[in-house]
Amino acid sequence: MLKDFEIKNTEDKGLKNEIRELNEELATLPQQLKEKKLPVLVLIEGWSAAGKGSLIKELISELDPRFYNVKSPVIQPEKEMRYPFLYPYATLIPENGKIMFLDSGWMESAVRKFLAHEITKGEYRRRIRQVNEFERQLRDSGYIVVKIFLHISRDEQFSRLKALAEHQDTGWRVTSDDLWQLRDYSRFLDAYDEFMDKTDEVRWHVLDGTHRKTAVRDAMKLMVREMGRAIREERYCGSPFKEEFPLVPMPALGDVDLTPAISDEDYKKKLKKLQTRLSELHNIIYRKKIPVILCYEGWDAAGKGGNIRRVAYPLDPRGFDVQPIASPLPHELNRQYLWRFWTRLPRSGHITIFDRTWYGRVMVERLEGFCSETDWKRAYNEINEFERMLTDWGAVVLKFWIHIDPDTQLARFTDRQNTPEKQWKITDEDWRNREKWPQYEVAVDEMLQKTSTKNAPWYIIESNDKKYARIKTLEIIVDALEKACDGQFARSAGYEEE
Amino acid sequence: MLKDFEIKNTEDKGLKNEIRELNEELATLPQQLKEKKLPVLVLIEGWSAAGKGSLIKELISELDPRFYNVKSPVIQPEKEMRYPFLYPYATLIPENGKIMFLDSGWMESAVRKFLAHEITKGEYRRRIRQVNEFERQLRDSGYIVVKIFLHISRDEQFSRLKALAEHQDTGWRVTSDDLWQLRDYSRFLDAYDEFMDKTDEVRWHVLDGTHRKTAVRDAMKLMVREMGRAIREERYCGSPFKEEFPLVPMPALGDVDLTPAISDEDYKKKLKKLQTRLSELHNIIYRKKIPVILCYEGWDAAGKGGNIRRVAYPLDPRGFDVQPIASPLPHELNRQYLWRFWTRLPRSGHITIFDRTWYGRVMVERLEGFCSETDWKRAYNEINEFERMLTDWGAVVLKFWIHIDPDTQLARFTDRQNTPEKQWKITDEDWRNREKWPQYEVAVDEMLQKTSTKNAPWYIIESNDKKYARIKTLEIIVDALEKACDGQFARSAGYEEE
Repeated sequence: MLKDFEIKNTEDKGLKNEIRELNEELATLPQQLKEKKLPVLVLIEGWSAAGKGSLIKELISELDPRFYNVKSPVIQPEKEMRYPFLYPYATLIPENGKIMFLDSGWMESAVRKFLAHEITKGEYRRRIRQVNEFERQLRDSGYIVVKIFLHISRDEQFSRLKALAEHQDTGWRVTSDDLWQLRDYSRFLDAYDEFMDKTDEVRWHVLDGTHRKTAVRDAMKLMVREMGRAIREERYCGSPFKEEFPLVPMPALGDVDLTPAISDEDYKKKLKKLQTRLSELHNIIYRKKIPVILCYEGWDAAGKGGNIRRVAYPLDPRGFDVQPIASPLPHELNRQYLWRFWTRLPRSGHITIFDRTWYGRVMVERLEGFCSETDWKRAYNEINEFERMLTDWGAVVLKFWIHIDPDTQLARFTDRQNTPEKQWKITDEDWRNREKWPQYEVAVDEMLQKTSTKNAPWYIIESNDKKYARIKTLEIIVDALEKACDGQFARSAGYEEE
Repeated sequence: MLKDFEIKNTEDKGLKNEIRELNEELATLPQQLKEKKLPVLVLIEGWSAAGKGSLIKELISELDPRFYNVKSPVIQPEKEMRYPFLYPYATLIPENGKIMFLDSGWMESAVRKFLAHEITKGEYRRRIRQVNEFERQLRDSGYIVVKIFLHISRDEQFSRLKALAEHQDTGWRVTSDDLWQLRDYSRFLDAYDEFMDKTDEVRWHVLDGTHRKTAVRDAMKLMVREMGRAIREERYCGSPFKEEFPLVPMPALGDVDLTPAISDEDYKKKLKKLQTRLSELHNIIYRKKIPVILCYEGWDAAGKGGNIRRVAYPLDPRGFDVQPIASPLPHELNRQYLWRFWTRLPRSGHITIFDRTWYGRVMVERLEGFCSETDWKRAYNEINEFERMLTDWGAVVLKFWIHIDPDTQLARFTDRQNTPEKQWKITDEDWRNREKWPQYEVAVDEMLQKTSTKNAPWYIIESNDKKYARIKTLEIIVDALEKACDGQFARSAGYEEE
């Protein structure tokens, strides 16, 4: 990849006109991207002092600022990271019709931490896998992902860093990391080369950075070509790719026995005991910086709210939050559908309870036609990958399907209808959804079968008796957190060190 | 305030029933808040170990998680702060129909930093003023702001911290800051007391924290009362308050001579020189951590875009961004109108260019009736306060009105209409707005008169000749940044150390 690339080190002539023409062409594209609702992510990686910043400056010089953004995510020391590896990038993805330029990103972060021994070989491999998953997911949902590596030779790097360091106004820009890279140029070269080889599913483009204008011309050509192609073609909508995840077998919903119940006395006793323990565990979680993600899905009126309140009650409010998930807002609809969940993740050591989740994709969005069939069929795999990124990070991910039968739902709907204080809880939409119970049951069954992975399993919670349901949920949470505090959860649950 | 408060230290009986009843009442309120689109901000301040966390836990125990959020903003050491003092709170305000609980906030941050000598007496006074402005602005735009101080005696604090420290599971919770507060209890008492006295425009409520249940009951009563009152009454919409800000006299737009122009040769020469200097200044700004906020407003087709591009071109893309401001999205409309600008502020050392700004409030929102007359009339003062918070922070705030005459606009509109690549830039709305030129001129004149403060002045940029306009803008920016780098800008511009 990188090693085969020949640095020409010759300056082409007559570039000024060529660049002007490309610039004019480039300036017309954003409007078309907007019309076609195409988002563009331009990742610019490369050597220190290769000119990434100036390249971006030239690329945006004629663009209307309404259409682009530039970010250079800071690479945080691993021990200060409070979010998953890809979090800084996944939360930054552009919305439809916008171009996001990233001045170095996931490649630089992964390679640098690996060479600095901040992460293990196994973790490095996991990150390479995550990068492939992330890029593919973006491409599959219509993102134009342009990946550029700006290449210069060691000699060139040396003379540039020297010039920077010796000038009084720019000396501060040369960091010890830059000097380390120069010193270890060939180790970095090997590592970049390997990383690019392994993440070439969404293609890398190596550009010669020796001459600024040549690099600008080449990058502009590339962008015009890639964006132009995407504008001309039908919006890309996904590969048939499917990985086999280690799954936990799940019963069909129709086979679940909903009779389990609990006596009031037993309930009170157990509730108190479990809540006390959960409170203690929250303390330990916090100190051990273990992230916890609790996902609630279930039938309308199944008792999600009351269940969540019983789990939340013993928790320190400073260390958890509940994220109620409603229909996506316009700025959320304009991005890949997992974006609004990436941005709601807990910091390590915190608990987030999702009251409805990303599984909306394969339930309501599937049934109401809010996404295409390709979209929701692809989503099982995307969700499994997303959740594996979370458990790779060390998160405890538990998913609860709060389950009742149609008769119980009817009784509760009727009760809500007849009780003035509860009437706001019941809407026409609830009644409409109820009519689609059979279709939903098919979708939920498929979801449970395909996404109950060993690392992020589903639990069916029998909730005809709400009290029984609360105790069962609490027991599962307490048990999982006990294991997590003992270091038995997450990475060891389904995925061995590769 | 605090010193007059008598800590009773007696436990009321029969609280369990009372609390249950209050809880039931409390649980019914969010639905009404939602219907009336009322946002609630509950600030809970108080002594370390006074039980702020457990109080919040009880207050939310029966609330539907869809209606509330709890945050405990971390108090960052002053030297690590990269945003204005109120930024952590102003960016967290709830949306309509939601309750936000803050587990300590601006009071704790200000008082603690003052007592720790992290900020000067003058800065402390400025922060008290900012707090009053912030709270009033929230209240004026319909927020229910409930401020609670949870009070315990020194003896009580001592025994609680001792108990925490001696228990193996909780010992880590006692920080050196807690012990400092205990040691300096009476100094903190004085400081809290003074702070509360000076920020009582939105009223403080002191609650006795000695007995947990009593405090819970009192807090619930308070919330039921305050939220209930707001639900019953008309939505509050603003006080007639108006402070006199030191203003820069501005000409009426009609009196501005629009003939200034520049020769091509002169333009090229000056452009290059100014851009080179701006690039150097950007470096210094970055190292001195000076935040810079450039605001663009102006007539349609006045040349804002091209002007912004000439300013942006020499800047390092990693150190600036352009924020194009369009119509507010639903989640933005659901919060105080300045929220979407607070969340777009640059970090210190960075430059943000606003392509249209918060002045939409007194232009398009005023003329199109998107806000009430009270709203936009109040906005001049609110905006002056907001901008003073920015310059208090040390920001350079420059505001440009890009000015043309109606004939020039017509010529440019016609050109756009007739040039295929430019057609997307001209819409029916532009033509409609053009018909309202006289009304807009009245609004703009009033805006320029009332908001050109010494610390954040307006500049009218004659843009019939776009090149002249670009040079003038660049000259103003370069001049202001030179002064800022010499430490002459911002705080010294209009406001002496009080």
